[in-house]
Amino acid sequence: MKNIVTVGGGTGSYTVLSGLKHVPDVSLSAVVSMADDGGSTGVLMDELGVLPTGDVRQCLVALSEHSDILRELMNYRFHNGTLKGHSFGNIFLAALEKVTGDFTKGVEIASEILKTSGKVIPITHDSAKLCVLLSNGKLIEGEDKIQNDIAIRTYGLKKIFYKKKVSLSKHAKKALLDADLIILGPGNYYCSILPNLVVSGFKGTIKRSKAKIIFPVNLTNKLEHTANWKVSDYVKDIEQYLGRPVDVILVNSRRPTALQVKSYELEEGKGVMVFDDFDDSRVIRTSLLSTTLLKNQHANAIKAARGFIRHDSVKLAKCIGKIISK
Amino acid sequence: MKNIVTVGGGTGSYTVLSGLKHVPDVSLSAVVSMADDGGSTGVLMDELGVLPTGDVRQCLVALSEHSDILRELMNYRFHNGTLKGHSFGNIFLAALEKVTGDFTKGVEIASEILKTSGKVIPITHDSAKLCVLLSNGKLIEGEDKIQNDIAIRTYGLKKIFYKKKVSLSKHAKKALLDADLIILGPGNYYCSILPNLVVSGFKGTIKRSKAKIIFPVNLTNKLEHTANWKVSDYVKDIEQYLGRPVDVILVNSRRPTALQVKSYELEEGKGVMVFDDFDDSRVIRTSLLSTTLLKNQHANAIKAARGFIRHDSVKLAKCIGKIISK
Repeated sequence: MKNIVTVGGGTGSYTVLSGLKHVPDVSLSAVVSMADDGGSTGVLMDELGVLPTGDVRQCLVALSEHSDILRELMNYRFHNGTLKGHSFGNIFLAALEKVTGDFTKGVEIASEILKTSGKVIPITHDSAKLCVLLSNGKLIEGEDKIQNDIAIRTYGLKKIFYKKKVSLSKHAKKALLDADLIILGPGNYYCSILPNLVVSGFKGTIKRSKAKIIFPVNLTNKLEHTANWKVSDYVKDIEQYLGRPVDVILVNSRRPTALQVKSYELEEGKGVMVFDDFDDSRVIRTSLLSTTLLKNQHANAIKAARGFIRHDSVKLAKCIGKIISK
Repeated sequence: MKNIVTVGGGTGSYTVLSGLKHVPDVSLSAVVSMADDGGSTGVLMDELGVLPTGDVRQCLVALSEHSDILRELMNYRFHNGTLKGHSFGNIFLAALEKVTGDFTKGVEIASEILKTSGKVIPITHDSAKLCVLLSNGKLIEGEDKIQNDIAIRTYGLKKIFYKKKVSLSKHAKKALLDADLIILGPGNYYCSILPNLVVSGFKGTIKRSKAKIIFPVNLTNKLEHTANWKVSDYVKDIEQYLGRPVDVILVNSRRPTALQVKSYELEEGKGVMVFDDFDDSRVIRTSLLSTTLLKNQHANAIKAARGFIRHDSVKLAKCIGKIISK
């Protein structure tokens, strides 16, 4: 039995966990960012004083062995009235925190109800307001704002940190120390991956952990944050935050279709594709690309037609499975 | 194995089901009124176009074998923000109806999640607007309004009916036909019990059913509706709606404390206690009174001090258990 720990949040963690839960003889833990403060999650935090639910919800759903309908329920978003915009799963986690008086306890009960094949562990129990400082001195507070502030692209990011000290939870620490494999990402680099790495205690724990660190490099850049980044940029950057090298770098070898790339570049701009420039013995190059067309209901016509360039959860899990069995 | 069907809604059904679920060798079904249109339930109905959730929620919680925390979660009411006033369980059932596209299917899934020891069956799938016609010709529409309109007390009720035809659901019909015992109430007579009896098809089904009909008579009168009613008034009235006699009448023999009676009369007015005037061989007289002090958090000082005069779920279940074993 190998202990695998994913570190991330949101859609990226959803993808990697959805695949990994089918790999035999592994014990899975999802360490999840608590920096989300936008959308339905942000409203519930403001109004009810609860911790952020969105990333945790996605990981719970990914790991759930319950019926499809229950997983659909967790992601169901109300379209009308006072509940409009809220996902049911967020309300569920908020209510559980209220009833138990403890977010982590609430997540445990949610795991039981959803019959998850693995643990979902909030990286911290502290209120976590993410900040970035740009090289022009501008400070941006809050993950939701950081997501979309184009000043980051213009001026470049100097530092990412929390407004107040945010400490690694003891459950997250234990999971990282007991891990055989730690997977960083994939996902939104500044808003899902780094928010875990800059938690106080994370770097020290990672240094003490005997785990092999796997880094699946993103397929596309988020232009506000990482325009024109290449594989080498990601590796160099994340190693600075870790204070140690990663052990395995997963790079997708299958190019998306020309139409997909063109659509992305039209929609997002040049510099959206992550160029593979990294010649290193730690790299595993294999097809990790999803060829299933996933349409975004809320996207415009171009986005809807092209599908998303994204990791395939099965391919990713297969690749990680091979690393485990070595 | 005996098939027991309760007919009612809200707190009364909660009480009788909470006790009955511990009786061995019974298969329990709770047929539930769908006339609720007030409070959190009413808001969700208006805004989301879902069926009423409140009574179903209470029955699900009563029958749940899950942890106390999950039952507490279902009854948890939000205190702040846009969710203020909503009970989590109502939101849960509303979301399940949305995801499954079918209220009954949603209730089935909720039963699975809550591990209920019995079925909860909505009396109808139709939108059910309850109306009462007073003897002065005034029409009151909607259960929430009927609950508190003092004109009913002044003028007396002539007729109770639905605005549009509301038909017995096929699951409810089957449960009533397969029943060995049907328990009518206890509960709010006009707003939880009669709303089931006036559903189209109920009367005919009850006539065809071989079940023994048990009628636990309320301990107190709701002054707006049934001031000064005695046991005989309840029996006479319900038999008119049923079109047949009831088989067993359960009458509480233990008088509440003088202080409780006095507090009730001070708070509600004279005529609040149900006087036991009924000399009939069908009556079983035994202590059914709860002596546990249940405080209403929202009540005023008098109400809070006196506790509620209400049925004891264990005593009620024990009494019904004896009838079964005869």
